[in-house]
Amino acid sequence: MGGFDTVSFLSDLGLVDEHVGVVKAILRDLAPHVQVIDLTHNIAPYDVRAGSLALARAAGYLPSGVIVAAVDAGERRPIGVEVANGKGVLLGPDNGLLASAVAMVGGAERAVVLDREEFHLASPGGVLTVRDVFASVAAHLCNGRDLAEVGTIVDVDSILPGIVPLARASDDAATTLVHAEVLWIDRNGNCQLNIGLDDVAPWGLADGTRLDITANDQTRSVVRIAKPGLLGPGALGLVIDGSGLLTLVLDRRSAADELSLAPGDQVSLRPSNEPGSEAVPSVPIELRR
Amino acid sequence: MGGFDTVSFLSDLGLVDEHVGVVKAILRDLAPHVQVIDLTHNIAPYDVRAGSLALARAAGYLPSGVIVAAVDAGERRPIGVEVANGKGVLLGPDNGLLASAVAMVGGAERAVVLDREEFHLASPGGVLTVRDVFASVAAHLCNGRDLAEVGTIVDVDSILPGIVPLARASDDAATTLVHAEVLWIDRNGNCQLNIGLDDVAPWGLADGTRLDITANDQTRSVVRIAKPGLLGPGALGLVIDGSGLLTLVLDRRSAADELSLAPGDQVSLRPSNEPGSEAVPSVPIELRR
Amino acid sequence: MGGFDTVSFLSDLGLVDEHVGVVKAILRDLAPHVQVIDLTHNIAPYDVRAGSLALARAAGYLPSGVIVAAVDAGERRPIGVEVANGKGVLLGPDNGLLASAVAMVGGAERAVVLDREEFHLASPGGVLTVRDVFASVAAHLCNGRDLAEVGTIVDVDSILPGIVPLARASDDAATTLVHAEVLWIDRNGNCQLNIGLDDVAPWGLADGTRLDITANDQTRSVVRIAKPGLLGPGALGLVIDGSGLLTLVLDRRSAADELSLAPGDQVSLRPSNEPGSEAVPSVPIELRR
Repeated sequence: MGGFDTVSFLSDLGLVDEHVGVVKAILRDLAPHVQVIDLTHNIAPYDVRAGSLALARAAGYLPSGVIVAAVDAGERRPIGVEVANGKGVLLGPDNGLLASAVAMVGGAERAVVLDREEFHLASPGGVLTVRDVFASVAAHLCNGRDLAEVGTIVDVDSILPGIVPLARASDDAATTLVHAEVLWIDRNGNCQLNIGLDDVAPWGLADGTRLDITANDQTRSVVRIAKPGLLGPGALGLVIDGSGLLTLVLDRRSAADELSLAPGDQVSLRPSNEPGSEAVPSVPIELRR
Repeated sequence: MGGFDTVSFLSDLGLVDEHVGVVKAILRDLAPHVQVIDLTHNIAPYDVRAGSLALARAAGYLPSGVIVAAVDAGERRPIGVEVANGKGVLLGPDNGLLASAVAMVGGAERAVVLDREEFHLASPGGVLTVRDVFASVAAHLCNGRDLAEVGTIVDVDSILPGIVPLARASDDAATTLVHAEVLWIDRNGNCQLNIGLDDVAPWGLADGTRLDITANDQTRSVVRIAKPGLLGPGALGLVIDGSGLLTLVLDRRSAADELSLAPGDQVSLRPSNEPGSEAVPSVPIELRR
Repeated sequence: MGGFDTVSFLSDLGLVDEHVGVVKAILRDLAPHVQVIDLTHNIAPYDVRAGSLALARAAGYLPSGVIVAAVDAGERRPIGVEVANGKGVLLGPDNGLLASAVAMVGGAERAVVLDREEFHLASPGGVLTVRDVFASVAAHLCNGRDLAEVGTIVDVDSILPGIVPLARASDDAATTLVHAEVLWIDRNGNCQLNIGLDDVAPWGLADGTRLDITANDQTRSVVRIAKPGLLGPGALGLVIDGSGLLTLVLDRRSAADELSLAPGDQVSLRPSNEPGSEAVPSVPIELRR
């Protein structure tokens, strides 16, 4: 028996073209009992890194079922990865997209290359991997097919790993410095960093602690705070976001605009009670625009 | 018993981040029988006024169930409001967002503060109210929990009221003037005003009636018409929109662009058959751009 | 009996206003067993041509059920068209929007004008056709009403036909030239042309074949290739897309930006092995920007 009744779906297909709708139409046709949960389809085209991060953040919340993740699909071989004692199967391209999410839910148990064309749809033209392979295979898995039926088992280690940007701490003379990267900038301009509280545990980041942040060769003061609404006007804050990561915020304004930050940019942080701190306190400075 | 099988969902979360998808994943996991109806997630960040208006316009069409409305959620306490003899429960922040919709469906019957953490999700970091409180509580309500179980009953009058911008009529010497506000500008640039037909009943607004409208210190002639397609090129029209409100339109062009109007802007209207009208008739004038 | 359990839905309503959500709320209320498949709601306002093309591309994938297509709805009379031995009913305005999709699935079998107001919703103001007519009628059809009950049967030939832009081949002296039109530009900037492989069959378009393409008075070399990833940097490719149409592509860049193309623009193609070809080979040229 087996099978699933939910397909979670993330892609870089956007919501202007009809592709997302066609995938859902195929699922409705082939596996009418299935509900589709759209995670997001507005990952920037080809942005595997962003797709991987969004998928990993969502992974712990996804119900048992099939997860279709299609970012820059079609260039690499289509794969399927089983996780969580068979409670989930991720379908996506073998380009590192799935790696972080798979790790978040305990690692890969089985992996296949989706090379059994009898489980694909015939295309009127070129192959659209998300439509002709992932949608169709997802439906078959939901209808009870085993992963080993819809593809050829491959060694889990043959799957391309993801690149998770880790923070690295460094000692520079008198002060402790952490180099980090902007992982994601959300709709409100909050800048999620690849630093968890554990990474800066020695600093004892109680609410109200001041840090210096250097970004784009400018150093600013930032205060550890519980939520943006507690900040004064123009003051930069550092909150623990809903994923447990340090995140730069302003109150009702975009920290990304304020600091001219984009995903992938580097920033460094150090406690501002160290001697030699030259950071500007709380007055907002209009950086490059 | 009780319980619901529909959650209507409106937010300012946008469709780029994965948050909307995560809320739906949680609902699918905790209350798999539930269908989610997305009203819109593209309310501008923090724009409680716009969210309140969209929710109020939709309210009369929503099926029995839970309504999650999350605009600028997280700053104010999360509340639940029961309406329509228990056929609906609205969950949202106590910032006035729910007020107009609650009024549209007959007023609040019971209200709670959502302070029972046993019905919330534990966060790996900071609390995301929409995910950790609203999604989880909505699932519990759908599964049959009573509103009084998931929170602490509070006086309905303790809930922050909404601010509904009413039109005000004024007598200025010879002519009758109505001061109004632009409530909403839709995708086509039509400008919904806070004036119903009743508000201008004395004018007897039959099709073809001409009015003068003053916006941004410019006065233009506008004609009451059944639908935009009946207008001549460049002519401004005034229709009764699908919510029963007077709405400024052009045929296949944006009235908002033409008049440089934004939500919240003030306009005034008066019958143009009054003496002293200096409005330009129907030729389109390029106002400030 | 009869009835349906799926409504596929395409519109130019956008995802900012609450209209799409209200349509789904009405369907949930009146026909709770129905699932809605959103094809796209981001067709540009009034762009019947784009809506028609997206609908036609999706048509072959839609499950049995009702299809609501609302682009520039409200100006023309609302109609219903039955197709595929009654397995599908399309609802939309009589403006040519439905024609290509209807043709794709075998042609119209019955057509009605949706003039039975007892199957419409009463509006608090003006009629919103998609909400007051299409949503309500779709629910009644899903609940088992026959098409002839919800409207007045009209001659299928009285329905406005669509305008499908066909390619036309021409002989100009020594070379064979095909004049074509850009049908659609997808999220990645790929330019779908109205040319299928059959239209250029005499050219024997094997992979690696070179053609000259003229667009905006500039001629460029383009290579027939299986997928964009096989192209060198900056090289223009011609793939067969998932709908079976020739499509101009670059690898991970927008061909539309590169060639300054928009939907509806004209291009011409000819084999570049013909004498007199003056096309620039593969080096990318920055055309007008």
